[in-house]
Amino acid sequence: MGFLIFVSIEAASPGGADYEGGSTMPAVYEPEEFGIELRRSFERGPLNSLGDVPGVTVGHCTVDTKRNKTGVTVILPCVHNPFVDKLTAASAVINGFGKTMGTIQIGELGTLETPIALTNTLNVGLVHDALTGYMMDRCGREGVELLSVNPVVAECNDCTLNDIRHRAVGKEEVLEAISSAGSEFLQGDVGAGKGMICHGLKGGIGSASRRLYIAGRTFTLAVLVLTNHGRLEDLVLSGRPFGRELAGRAPSEDKGSCILILATDLPLSSRQLGRILRRAPVGLARLGSFIGNGSGEIAVGFSTACPSPWSKEKPFLQKVLLNESLMDLPFEAMAEAVQEAVLRSMLCADTVTGFDGTVVRSLREYLV
Amino acid sequence: MGFLIFVSIEAASPGGADYEGGSTMPAVYEPEEFGIELRRSFERGPLNSLGDVPGVTVGHCTVDTKRNKTGVTVILPCVHNPFVDKLTAASAVINGFGKTMGTIQIGELGTLETPIALTNTLNVGLVHDALTGYMMDRCGREGVELLSVNPVVAECNDCTLNDIRHRAVGKEEVLEAISSAGSEFLQGDVGAGKGMICHGLKGGIGSASRRLYIAGRTFTLAVLVLTNHGRLEDLVLSGRPFGRELAGRAPSEDKGSCILILATDLPLSSRQLGRILRRAPVGLARLGSFIGNGSGEIAVGFSTACPSPWSKEKPFLQKVLLNESLMDLPFEAMAEAVQEAVLRSMLCADTVTGFDGTVVRSLREYLV
Amino acid sequence: MGFLIFVSIEAASPGGADYEGGSTMPAVYEPEEFGIELRRSFERGPLNSLGDVPGVTVGHCTVDTKRNKTGVTVILPCVHNPFVDKLTAASAVINGFGKTMGTIQIGELGTLETPIALTNTLNVGLVHDALTGYMMDRCGREGVELLSVNPVVAECNDCTLNDIRHRAVGKEEVLEAISSAGSEFLQGDVGAGKGMICHGLKGGIGSASRRLYIAGRTFTLAVLVLTNHGRLEDLVLSGRPFGRELAGRAPSEDKGSCILILATDLPLSSRQLGRILRRAPVGLARLGSFIGNGSGEIAVGFSTACPSPWSKEKPFLQKVLLNESLMDLPFEAMAEAVQEAVLRSMLCADTVTGFDGTVVRSLREYLV
Amino acid sequence: MGFLIFVSIEAASPGGADYEGGSTMPAVYEPEEFGIELRRSFERGPLNSLGDVPGVTVGHCTVDTKRNKTGVTVILPCVHNPFVDKLTAASAVINGFGKTMGTIQIGELGTLETPIALTNTLNVGLVHDALTGYMMDRCGREGVELLSVNPVVAECNDCTLNDIRHRAVGKEEVLEAISSAGSEFLQGDVGAGKGMICHGLKGGIGSASRRLYIAGRTFTLAVLVLTNHGRLEDLVLSGRPFGRELAGRAPSEDKGSCILILATDLPLSSRQLGRILRRAPVGLARLGSFIGNGSGEIAVGFSTACPSPWSKEKPFLQKVLLNESLMDLPFEAMAEAVQEAVLRSMLCADTVTGFDGTVVRSLREYLV
Repeated sequence: MGFLIFVSIEAASPGGADYEGGSTMPAVYEPEEFGIELRRSFERGPLNSLGDVPGVTVGHCTVDTKRNKTGVTVILPCVHNPFVDKLTAASAVINGFGKTMGTIQIGELGTLETPIALTNTLNVGLVHDALTGYMMDRCGREGVELLSVNPVVAECNDCTLNDIRHRAVGKEEVLEAISSAGSEFLQGDVGAGKGMICHGLKGGIGSASRRLYIAGRTFTLAVLVLTNHGRLEDLVLSGRPFGRELAGRAPSEDKGSCILILATDLPLSSRQLGRILRRAPVGLARLGSFIGNGSGEIAVGFSTACPSPWSKEKPFLQKVLLNESLMDLPFEAMAEAVQEAVLRSMLCADTVTGFDGTVVRSLREYLV
Repeated sequence: MGFLIFVSIEAASPGGADYEGGSTMPAVYEPEEFGIELRRSFERGPLNSLGDVPGVTVGHCTVDTKRNKTGVTVILPCVHNPFVDKLTAASAVINGFGKTMGTIQIGELGTLETPIALTNTLNVGLVHDALTGYMMDRCGREGVELLSVNPVVAECNDCTLNDIRHRAVGKEEVLEAISSAGSEFLQGDVGAGKGMICHGLKGGIGSASRRLYIAGRTFTLAVLVLTNHGRLEDLVLSGRPFGRELAGRAPSEDKGSCILILATDLPLSSRQLGRILRRAPVGLARLGSFIGNGSGEIAVGFSTACPSPWSKEKPFLQKVLLNESLMDLPFEAMAEAVQEAVLRSMLCADTVTGFDGTVVRSLREYLV
Repeated sequence: MGFLIFVSIEAASPGGADYEGGSTMPAVYEPEEFGIELRRSFERGPLNSLGDVPGVTVGHCTVDTKRNKTGVTVILPCVHNPFVDKLTAASAVINGFGKTMGTIQIGELGTLETPIALTNTLNVGLVHDALTGYMMDRCGREGVELLSVNPVVAECNDCTLNDIRHRAVGKEEVLEAISSAGSEFLQGDVGAGKGMICHGLKGGIGSASRRLYIAGRTFTLAVLVLTNHGRLEDLVLSGRPFGRELAGRAPSEDKGSCILILATDLPLSSRQLGRILRRAPVGLARLGSFIGNGSGEIAVGFSTACPSPWSKEKPFLQKVLLNESLMDLPFEAMAEAVQEAVLRSMLCADTVTGFDGTVVRSLREYLV
Repeated sequence: MGFLIFVSIEAASPGGADYEGGSTMPAVYEPEEFGIELRRSFERGPLNSLGDVPGVTVGHCTVDTKRNKTGVTVILPCVHNPFVDKLTAASAVINGFGKTMGTIQIGELGTLETPIALTNTLNVGLVHDALTGYMMDRCGREGVELLSVNPVVAECNDCTLNDIRHRAVGKEEVLEAISSAGSEFLQGDVGAGKGMICHGLKGGIGSASRRLYIAGRTFTLAVLVLTNHGRLEDLVLSGRPFGRELAGRAPSEDKGSCILILATDLPLSSRQLGRILRRAPVGLARLGSFIGNGSGEIAVGFSTACPSPWSKEKPFLQKVLLNESLMDLPFEAMAEAVQEAVLRSMLCADTVTGFDGTVVRSLREYLV
C-alpha cells in the first residue's frame, strides 16, 4: 500500500500525455554524484543492475495518463522458456501485508517457471491472467503442453498518485513490457514504479548489482526493487538523518511496500536463496526503514545456474552448490545491493503529479 | 492439477446445454445410504455443511458447455462486510503445488477480509480481479473507502474434463455465484467442482459439519472441499481397499489437488485455526490419499467469532479464545468433517463427460 | 507427553532387575503373523528397519529398574564423523507440543552433524550434554577442532510407567547406547521406548524400510519411530475399528507423542526431505490417530548421499538430486513405512508394569 | 558461535579470582555520555532495561576463573509461576545457526512456561537440565504436578575468551542466577555475557526499554540482548563507519550470534509478538551488522498481559489485544530498543583477558 506521506497539492502537471509506454528516457543517477556515501565491499557489475546477470532482462510498460500513474514491470529470468527448464528459486516474507502471488509453489518446489511481474495492488489479478496467457502462447509456439502454470506477480499500492480503482494494467500492457525487455532498462518512475512513493519522496524501480569472485570465477548478485515504503522522517543518507531535517515535525505513517527481486548466477539451492533474501531488511534499514506494519515487504529470488528440467526423462539431476561457509559473500552483497537499489529508485525518479494534483517530489530536488 | 486417471472415451453426453449456472439440482447423498461406515464422534449439524455456521453462505456458478466443464464457487464468510470487520483466519499449506492467492496476508495479519473463491487453475487471475471488483463495488455502496484488498482465490486443475485453456470463468460468473449464495447449496459436480476428479472418479464440491458442545453452548465446525486429488487404487471405503479392487492393475499418478475451507463459530485465534487446519491430512488419509507430489493441498480457515474492526478507533480489542487444552475437540471434528466432505463430493457428483468425450464416472455407479 | 490411557493396576512385575541395558532380546514380530493387513506398494528391505540404509546403525540403553522404565536410543547416521562431512537433513513439526532440540540449525543449514538421541521428556538436557561430550571426545580423537556442535535430541513422555522426575538417563547410558549400535537392533519396549504407550497399549521403538527402484538402482527409505501417542478407541487395524471394540465406552485423551526419524540413501535436498517428512501424518492416520493436542509429533530426516564437507576447501560442491517429478515414490514409501513402524513398535513390545504398579499390555495379547 | 575477531595476546589479567558470581558492579553507561547519537522516537523507561516491565527480573551468575570466562543469565518473566499461568510468547529465527531450545512448543502453543536462560553453546544441555530441576522443585513446593516442561535456553559461543569445552555452568550456577534476580541487574561482561565479543570488541549483556502511550495508558517494551556478533569493520556509531576506521584493512569473519529477549506488558497475541520480533534485524543493522552466516540470531518474546491458565477449568479465556493498526508503535520501539541494548552491552563491558591470554577490549577505551 502507499498513501500520501510528503506531498503538496498543485496544479496538475501539464505533460502526461496518454499512455506512453515508458518512452521518456531518464538518466540513471548514481549516489556518488550527489555525495551520498554507501558502504561497499564489492564491485558493481558493468550495468549495476539486474541486467548484469547473464540472460536476465527487464521490461516496463508505463501507464501515464491524466487519470493513471501506474504500469507493469516484467523480469524475464532467462532466455529459454522457464517452464521447460525451471530456475531454482525462493521467496521470503519480510512483512506480509501484501498480495504477492505464486510464492506457495516456489516454497514447495523451489522453482520459478514464469517471468515475474510487478504492478499496482488492484491489478494483480489481471496481470496474473495476462502472464498466464503469455505462458500459454509461448509454450504453444514451442510445442510444450501447458495445462498448469504458476505466474509470480507482486505489487505495491500507488493510490496516492494513481487512480488505482481504474485497473489500468492488462494484457496489452504486460505483453508490451515483455516485448520491450532488455538487459538495459529504465529506473525510477517507470513501469510499475510510475506512481510509487518511497520515504515520502518519489520512488519506483531501482536496481544494483555486485560482483563476487570465488575460486577464480566471477559471479553476479543483482537486485531490483519496487519501492513504495518508508516515512520521510526516517530517511537516512550517508548515515545522517536527512529525512528528519527535511520532514519537520509531524510524524507520518509508513504505509508503503517494497518488493525485492534477487537474481544471481551463483549456483545455490532454494534454501540458500531464502537465506540471502532474508538479509533484505538490512539493506532497507541502512536507509532508515523499520519495516512498518502497513508494508508488503516480499522478496523473490532465483539462480540461473543449474535449472531443473520439467521432463521426467532424467531421474537424477546434477547440481552444483556454493559451499555454505562462503555464504557471507552473498549475504553482504545482498545488503549492499538492496540499499543501493532503493536509493537509485529514488534518485532516478522525477517529480510526479498525481491524478488529483498531488505532487510527490524527486529526492534529487533536495540534493543539489 | 487433475489429469486423466480412470476414464473411458465415449460419445459426448447428450445433455449439458449451454451455461446453466448450476440449475440442475442433484440430491445430497449420505455415506450411510450406501453402507459406507465413517468414524464419527460428533453429531452433524442440521445441514451437515458449511451453511450450519451462522452467517456463512455458499454460491456456485457452473459453466457447463460442450467445451467447458468448470465454474466458480464462492464462500461468503459472514453477512456483514468482512473488509470492515475482519474475521480471524489462518491458512495451511499441506502440499504447495498450487496457486492459491491471498495466504501471505492471512499469515501476517491473521484476518480474512473478502469472500473466498474456488475455480480452475488457469482462471485464478480473472476470478481474483472479479473479486477485487466486487469488493470495490460493495465498499463503495456502503461508503467504505477501499484502496487495497486481499481476495482469497484457490484452485484445482480440471483440465481432463474442461478445456481449461479457454478461461471461461470471469466477472459475470463470480457475481452470479455470489448472488446465488445461501446456507443451502449444491454439492458434487457444481461450481468449481464441475470438472474435478477425485480418486479417479467424479469429484467436486463436498461439505460436512460437526457440532461441539462446550460449557453448555453449541458450536459448529464445518468444512467445504473442492476435491481433485487421489488415485483410484488408493481409495479406501469403510476401511476396505475399495479402489484397488476396482482399479485393476496399472498404478496411476496422483496429480490432483484438494482445497479445504474451514468455517467455525468457535472463538479461536489464528494460531489455533492453523493448528486445526493442519489436521486436514488425517481426513484425507482416512480415504486413502498419501498427498501426492502433484497436488495443491491448501487449507484456509476462519472463525466468525470476535471479528476485528478495520477502524483504529478502539486501540484495544476484547477477544475470547478457546482454552488450548480443549483443542482435541476441533482437531477430531476436523478430521471427521474432512473425511465426510470428501466422500460427499464424490457421492453427490454425477458422471460427467468432458470436452473431448472423456467420461469420469460417479462413485455411486459402483456402490449399488 | 504420555499419560495413563488403558491400564490396570496390578502387583509389580517380578522381573525387571536393576538396570539391564536392553539385555532381553524380544523377537521381532511382523504384522502378517497376526493377520494384520497393510497397504504396501513397495518391497521391504532385508532387515525391514533403519539398518537397511547403508551406514546407519541404532543402539539402545534401557533403564529398567523398579523405579525407572526408560532409556535412550541413539541413531548413528553414518560411519564417518558427521561433524566433518555433514548429512543433508530436514525436520518437520507435525504437532509442536514437544521439546526436540537441534531443529533450528537443521532448518537454517539443512545438515545434520551428530547422532540423533531419543529419550524421555525430562532427560533431554542431560542427554544433550552427553551427546555434546561424545562429539567433543570423538572429534578430539580424530584431530578435529569442535567448538560448537548441534546435537539432535527428541523425546516422548513416559511418566505413566517411569518415575520421570528421577532423570535416570545420563552420560553413561548415552555412551552405552552408542557403543551397542548396530544395523540390527531391538524393537518394542527397549531404549527410549521402554516406558512408552501407544494407542493405550505398550508402544516404544519400531522401524520399517522400503526399497525404491529408480533407473536401475535400488535405494532404501527407512523410518524409526518412538511411539507414545494415540487413544485406544482410535486404533485401526486392517481398516477395522479394533481399538473401539476393545476400549469399551469411556473416551480418553490423546496425550502422547510420536518421534519419527527418516533415513535414506536417496540423493535429496533438505527441501525434498522436508516434503517427505510432511507425509508422516498419513502413516499415523492409517492406524487411527488424529494427532492430538498433547502430542509432540516431530519428524527428522537425513540422506546419506552427497554429504557436505565442513571444510571450506572446496568452494563449490557437486550434488545429485532426485527429479522432483518422482517424489511420489518416497512419499508413498514414507506413508507405508511410518504405518508399519508404528505397528511394529506395538507388536514387538511386551507388557510392562510401571513403577507404581500400572500395567500396560502388549497388543499381542489381544491378537491371538 | 564467536571466534577471534579483534584481539591481541597479552599477559593474562592479574585479577579474575575464582568464581565470583557476578559480584563486581560495573557502572551502566549510556550512549550519550560518549556522544553517540541514537534515533529515538520513544521515552526510555526509568531503568532503561527489561526490569521496567512489571514483574520481570533478571539474574546473573558469572564464572570468572583463569580457565573460564562464562556464565548464565536468567530472565524470570513474571512473579507468579509461569507453568501455572502461562505467558503469551513467540520466537523468531533471524539466522538459525544456533542451538536455542524450547522454540518448537512456543511456536505451537504460543506460550512460555519457564524462565529463559542464556549461556554458552556447549552448556545448553546442563542449563536445560538445571532449569528442568528448578521447575520441578518450584512446582513441587507449590503443589503443582509437573510431568512435562519446556525450558527455554539460548546460547552464544564464547570460545575465544572462555575454555568452552570445560562446561562450567551447571545446576549451582543456574540456581545462583535465579536467586540473585531483580529488576535492576548488571550489564556488559556479566553472566552469560562474560566471554562474548561484539563487533570485535567486548560484548555481553545489554538492555534497553521504551515507553508507549496508548489511549491514556503507559506500556513498556523492553529488550535484553546477549551480543556476540558482528565484525569490527562493520560497526557504525552515530551513522559513521567507526569500526572501519579502527579495524584497518583485513576483513574478518562474522561468526558470532545475538540472542534477543523481548518483554512487554502490552496485550498482544503470539502472532503479534512474532511480528515485533522480526524487526530485530533493523536494530542490529543500525549498528552495521549484516547478520552473517555463522550467527545464531534468535529472538524470543513474551507479554505479561493476559496469561493463559494451565487449568482446564475455564473453557473460554478473555483476552485483550492491541489493534493491529497500531503495530507501528511496538515495531519502531523494538528497532530502537535493540539498537540501544546492543550498544549498552558494549559500553558496559570492561576489557577482558581470556583463558589463553587473548585480550578483547572495551569499546569505551576507543571513545574517550
